[in-house]
Amino acid sequence: MNDRFLRACRGEKVDRPPIWIMRQAGRYLPEYRAIRKEMDFVTLCKTPEKAAEVTIQPIDRLGVDAAILFSDILVPVEPMGFKISFNPGPVLDHAVRTMQDVDNIRITEPEETVPYVYEAIRILRRELEGRVPLIGFAAAPFTLATYMVEGQGSKNFSKVKGLMFSEPATAHALLEKITVATEKYLMGQIKAGAQAVQLFDSWAGLLSAEDFREFAMPYARRILDTLQDAGVPRIYFALNNAHLLEEIKDCGAEVVGMDWRMDLAEANRRLGGRYALQGNLDPTVLLSGSPDTIRERALKVVAAGRGLPGHIFNLGHGILPETPVEHAQALVQAVQEAVR
Amino acid sequence: MNDRFLRACRGEKVDRPPIWIMRQAGRYLPEYRAIRKEMDFVTLCKTPEKAAEVTIQPIDRLGVDAAILFSDILVPVEPMGFKISFNPGPVLDHAVRTMQDVDNIRITEPEETVPYVYEAIRILRRELEGRVPLIGFAAAPFTLATYMVEGQGSKNFSKVKGLMFSEPATAHALLEKITVATEKYLMGQIKAGAQAVQLFDSWAGLLSAEDFREFAMPYARRILDTLQDAGVPRIYFALNNAHLLEEIKDCGAEVVGMDWRMDLAEANRRLGGRYALQGNLDPTVLLSGSPDTIRERALKVVAAGRGLPGHIFNLGHGILPETPVEHAQALVQAVQEAVR
Repeated sequence: MNDRFLRACRGEKVDRPPIWIMRQAGRYLPEYRAIRKEMDFVTLCKTPEKAAEVTIQPIDRLGVDAAILFSDILVPVEPMGFKISFNPGPVLDHAVRTMQDVDNIRITEPEETVPYVYEAIRILRRELEGRVPLIGFAAAPFTLATYMVEGQGSKNFSKVKGLMFSEPATAHALLEKITVATEKYLMGQIKAGAQAVQLFDSWAGLLSAEDFREFAMPYARRILDTLQDAGVPRIYFALNNAHLLEEIKDCGAEVVGMDWRMDLAEANRRLGGRYALQGNLDPTVLLSGSPDTIRERALKVVAAGRGLPGHIFNLGHGILPETPVEHAQALVQAVQEAVR
Repeated sequence: MNDRFLRACRGEKVDRPPIWIMRQAGRYLPEYRAIRKEMDFVTLCKTPEKAAEVTIQPIDRLGVDAAILFSDILVPVEPMGFKISFNPGPVLDHAVRTMQDVDNIRITEPEETVPYVYEAIRILRRELEGRVPLIGFAAAPFTLATYMVEGQGSKNFSKVKGLMFSEPATAHALLEKITVATEKYLMGQIKAGAQAVQLFDSWAGLLSAEDFREFAMPYARRILDTLQDAGVPRIYFALNNAHLLEEIKDCGAEVVGMDWRMDLAEANRRLGGRYALQGNLDPTVLLSGSPDTIRERALKVVAAGRGLPGHIFNLGHGILPETPVEHAQALVQAVQEAVR
């Protein structure tokens, strides 16, 4: 098996940095768009054979070193008692605002309520045949709570922050329930065959360091700790985390994801040299740069990764839908040719 | 005159931290909404008597320690050759994409092309009668360039970044022209009576530290340097700047604005203890917190400000339109009662 990704996560020696791309199964790929003509996004997430198929597309097309399950961070929210539609961003049929709303949230056995997630993982492990490892994922509790309290995407996150500031007990009760549900959800993914997991804390960067310390990190850390005995590498990725590195220093994952804002060597210093880092080319470089610019910028990231305890090449955020597939191919090729 | 604000900017001793609020003349004030029923936003910006009137409203209502000219960062873009509409965000009639587009940009004498800005300042200095100092402002060049290249607001800023990555000479030529125009625009404000200036780099936080070093800081710094001899305090505010503090350390302003993400004491350490800091209460605390929470959080910011070379209390970003005016009053009162 190509275990370059798993080895880099564990800080073991590799011939070159492994690469995968956040949202690598997505709209920039013509073969993905072809499948989306047949079915909408939610149906795709809930059809294991098709979810597995799009998960494998970028492995075939780009030759990346890891697959990541095609799914959505809101999948585990539905069995908690919410109806979700996309318009085009997610919209929940109701929002959490009171302790009663929190009490109404159901904790289920995800193998029973979202079996398609686990079936997709089992199919993928068979179909990948060890070509590359499979990454599972979930949202971190604070990030999932933002959707559940705002009821949809948000600009200022004033409702979820309002709950934290004015009803902290309710906010903590919600985060507690999400944490329990997410532990089950991810343990199930590992049991089904996920060989690594990434916790996406996409909105944590909107919090002050103080609020992150109270409302985000402890819950993410609990999940990461719970997963420790499962023995798979754990990646913690908080977008826009430059003001949070002193808190993330103790997150307990093997890998910390970094967006494009900070040089990886600087991030490594601030994190105390404890983590393999994942990242961090600016997705707009991949969208708009010439192949020469993409290669040059990619090699800078590879060079910054040389001094780290481990480096997994990735973008600093998801690949943009308008990105030419040739740009993604040029990137993967550049990293493949970079000898560590 | 109440010169608490100017003294704090200069790092002189003050009885308590001065306070003003970004967007303090705005929709959260009923008296502002009343005027906006009579005229649209652009007309208000271009009618000096009315712009002066709304500028003074928060001084009367809240008792803040500084006034900031009511205007818009896109005002100087119109005489450069663009038509701007609001829908509700700004939309330009054309976008800058080529060197020819940059060549077509006009540099004018702003006293002739946007005289209403300077007239509003002169009216304000008369009407304020020394009650509080008047702050002028402009966007920093990178931030203004984003609007001129994107043609409107943006989520990923892929067009302006694309120009930087693929046509850096064009991007630099654009930034150069904006810098010259902004120097004239701000020098005119000081000449008309502005007693301090703030440079808003609202979108700089979207840049990596490396790109900020090349495309943002040098141009902002040139403007700040040009204004040095004018003798008024200069404030540089880049939202979301935690990854940029090592670059901002040499910005050459008297005051650095900080958003709500980072503790002010930590920011001061990272900036080498060289600057008075302005900030940094989370605007969502003011929106959603109880008066007790607002007071408690405000006093924490005041406490963090005690060890700084100077502290001007502000929010970490503009006051949100839905904020109850009583919350803003509670905040100002809390800061007024905090003895430094």
